[in-house]
Amino acid sequence: MAQGASRLDSVISLAKRRGFVFPSGEIYGGTRSAWDYGPLGVELKENIKRQWWNRVVRSRQDVVGVDTAVILPRQVWEASGHVTAFTDPLVESLHTHKRYRADQLLEAYEEKHGHPAPRGLADVNDPVTGQPGAWTEPRAFSGLLKTYLGPVDDESGLHYLRPETAQGIFTQFANVMSTSRMKPPFGIGQIGKSFRNEITPGNFIFRTREFEQMELEFFVKPGTDEEWHQYWIDERFAWYTDLGIDPSHLRLYEHPKEKLSHYSKRTVDIEYTFGFQGAQWGELEGIANRTDYDLTVHSEASGAKLDYYDQVTKERWTPYVIEPSAGLTRSLMAFLVEAYTEDEAPNAKGGVDTRTVLRLDPRLSPVKAAVFPLSRKDELTGPTRELAQELRGIWNVDYDDAGAVGRRYRRQDEIGTPFCLTYDFDSVTDHAVTVRERDTMEQVRIPVTEVRSWLVERLGAC
Amino acid sequence: MAQGASRLDSVISLAKRRGFVFPSGEIYGGTRSAWDYGPLGVELKENIKRQWWNRVVRSRQDVVGVDTAVILPRQVWEASGHVTAFTDPLVESLHTHKRYRADQLLEAYEEKHGHPAPRGLADVNDPVTGQPGAWTEPRAFSGLLKTYLGPVDDESGLHYLRPETAQGIFTQFANVMSTSRMKPPFGIGQIGKSFRNEITPGNFIFRTREFEQMELEFFVKPGTDEEWHQYWIDERFAWYTDLGIDPSHLRLYEHPKEKLSHYSKRTVDIEYTFGFQGAQWGELEGIANRTDYDLTVHSEASGAKLDYYDQVTKERWTPYVIEPSAGLTRSLMAFLVEAYTEDEAPNAKGGVDTRTVLRLDPRLSPVKAAVFPLSRKDELTGPTRELAQELRGIWNVDYDDAGAVGRRYRRQDEIGTPFCLTYDFDSVTDHAVTVRERDTMEQVRIPVTEVRSWLVERLGAC
Repeated sequence: MAQGASRLDSVISLAKRRGFVFPSGEIYGGTRSAWDYGPLGVELKENIKRQWWNRVVRSRQDVVGVDTAVILPRQVWEASGHVTAFTDPLVESLHTHKRYRADQLLEAYEEKHGHPAPRGLADVNDPVTGQPGAWTEPRAFSGLLKTYLGPVDDESGLHYLRPETAQGIFTQFANVMSTSRMKPPFGIGQIGKSFRNEITPGNFIFRTREFEQMELEFFVKPGTDEEWHQYWIDERFAWYTDLGIDPSHLRLYEHPKEKLSHYSKRTVDIEYTFGFQGAQWGELEGIANRTDYDLTVHSEASGAKLDYYDQVTKERWTPYVIEPSAGLTRSLMAFLVEAYTEDEAPNAKGGVDTRTVLRLDPRLSPVKAAVFPLSRKDELTGPTRELAQELRGIWNVDYDDAGAVGRRYRRQDEIGTPFCLTYDFDSVTDHAVTVRERDTMEQVRIPVTEVRSWLVERLGAC
Repeated sequence: MAQGASRLDSVISLAKRRGFVFPSGEIYGGTRSAWDYGPLGVELKENIKRQWWNRVVRSRQDVVGVDTAVILPRQVWEASGHVTAFTDPLVESLHTHKRYRADQLLEAYEEKHGHPAPRGLADVNDPVTGQPGAWTEPRAFSGLLKTYLGPVDDESGLHYLRPETAQGIFTQFANVMSTSRMKPPFGIGQIGKSFRNEITPGNFIFRTREFEQMELEFFVKPGTDEEWHQYWIDERFAWYTDLGIDPSHLRLYEHPKEKLSHYSKRTVDIEYTFGFQGAQWGELEGIANRTDYDLTVHSEASGAKLDYYDQVTKERWTPYVIEPSAGLTRSLMAFLVEAYTEDEAPNAKGGVDTRTVLRLDPRLSPVKAAVFPLSRKDELTGPTRELAQELRGIWNVDYDDAGAVGRRYRRQDEIGTPFCLTYDFDSVTDHAVTVRERDTMEQVRIPVTEVRSWLVERLGAC
């Protein structure tokens, strides 16, 4: 099977061809800033969100959710440090006048050579020409996207689109803690869009200016922060492997002390082996110990009390924050890459064909079951449509009557549908259908009346 | 019970007090532009989305979903007409220098007096002073929010935040039709955030600069458009009443020909009787016949083929579009207002107390069940927590051990929790719990082992 970059190309091609992901505004030449999710992509994304929300928020007694605004008051980003510190080092190639992030050029060098560039940028070749590069001095470039609210485009209306959902959580910390009657250790989770003025969007949906995050801010007593940090590193790592990512395709990357963000005591990234050209690994999620930085700066800037008073010990303290911050669309890409498989399947001529299969965990599969009439005869299509409609009350279900059944299997295999159900001429009399499983291609005969409960056992009830 | 505006005030107060909705950036003095959804609000919002998605997209064979970007290429908004035509008539009071939308002032006049203002704005009193108003000439004010992508804030990087999700659908029409192998009549649905530079945000979450939409673009053969338009008016009306809105609290508002948007042949709004000061009714959803306007202008501007070739009749035509466009957060507000009830409940002293109940349809309730130990004794709290944890695998479930059971009932009643389960001292030996229903306050005793299936019957399995 294709490996590395060519495997990634196969996944990207499949994603476009089958309607997982389209270039945004493609009819106008597209944009590298953002991508649109098609009928299968939106279901896959929704399933990932639900898995995150169920495990990180809903099934836990110590976590609640919120959904805060993209455009917060400007003071939020001044206090958080984003207006001054949320910058990337921008350099321009003197040869091609293309712009790059200096840190990314240096990381790519280190990834390729196995050691840091001894003389910094002076050692980095130009990515376009491949010749020794010539670079401008790095300058700080703000990653915040601006917008203007109100009738006049002046400073009074200047606002920023959030570059992370976290600050909405910090500003509502006291409201949430009191209305939900929580006390540390407890967390507030959120899923939502964020926006960053990336200098070099690219690598498909990996780096875009508009993206989605799944963030948890977990508030703990100072002194217990390191232990909780480790807990969340382990717990989040387990989320990916539980949903089918091979642990050997993941690695933990410990941020060196000198490269930590302005708010962080320690940050560990969970990375996936995407197989990008020039850099094998890509970040899925950063798990940071943000200390009491955020609550303290917002408390000082706003005058609001953002601390916790322990009634039992009579102590007042500002919680430390452990933040597992996951890229939703990055994880979608990782699940696709991980699931992409080419194997062999018998064809109608008694030989074998190569088949493409997305071996997605059924909880993530965008289509849970496909229902086929063996032919387009009314006696088959009527009952098959009825069965499809009944199952649609619970799951996302396809109906397909086009072409040979073998071809229909192939179409479902490559989008990861766990089960295909065929209603044939025997079904008219024995009231049963053939259910075929995606990975093993094994077939069983199930009475129509039992299809629903048979699937509930294997797929859950939603 | 409180009616009209004071009833609305009670709902708003409840929403803030219990963590449904908080003012965005409240610690910094807040903003009227947007609101944040707290732990209960985010669950309610999620439930509304799921009801819309299930009914409008997933359960239908003729509709698929997408999730397109907020920031599309600039050409999209030039072609769609938004850059030139998406404006509101802005006027300023010469007395107070406050700004208003002229059309909203005139609508409020008409609502109050039962007829249009005969001399237009000259008849409209100043909303602040109540005196006869003095107004500047209306000027066109763009409702588009700008942002700049890339390293320089100049025209080359100018982009707009989408004021509707619809255009993302139109630009992907051909991609979606071909990859999902659909043909008209079929629809593409989407839920997502939109942004409008409203002159006068207000009325709680009703009019905000950042909001969420649930939009369907349904593509039909020209000539069948009027029939499909009526179909979707009826179908969308039924969605609200099916989820508990009294039909007498809804009305259909037919847009007068001369006030139609630039793309519309006919538009009908579904309005709800919110009980705002000065204007009783507010729009929940607009259902427009957008004709072939959008596909035609994008086809002309981009050069892409955005039409349909009927293999059977050998005809080529550009589909007409029927668009039911619902405000997600507006419907959330309507469901809260509709569900808000004050009735009487027995108290511990043998008398009655006023109780506040959110009579939400259980499918919408943010918390599906609450589990109480009768007291904080370990023999009760242990098994109660276990039961709560088991149920959390399926639903959003509260555990509450604080205060008298009667008070705990009140807390759950006012957030609309359908069932409260109490584990008492008898439970230790009879292994059963008391289940109490929200609206009737009736109680039944159910074996612990049957609680799950008892609830599945009444709540569904997710």
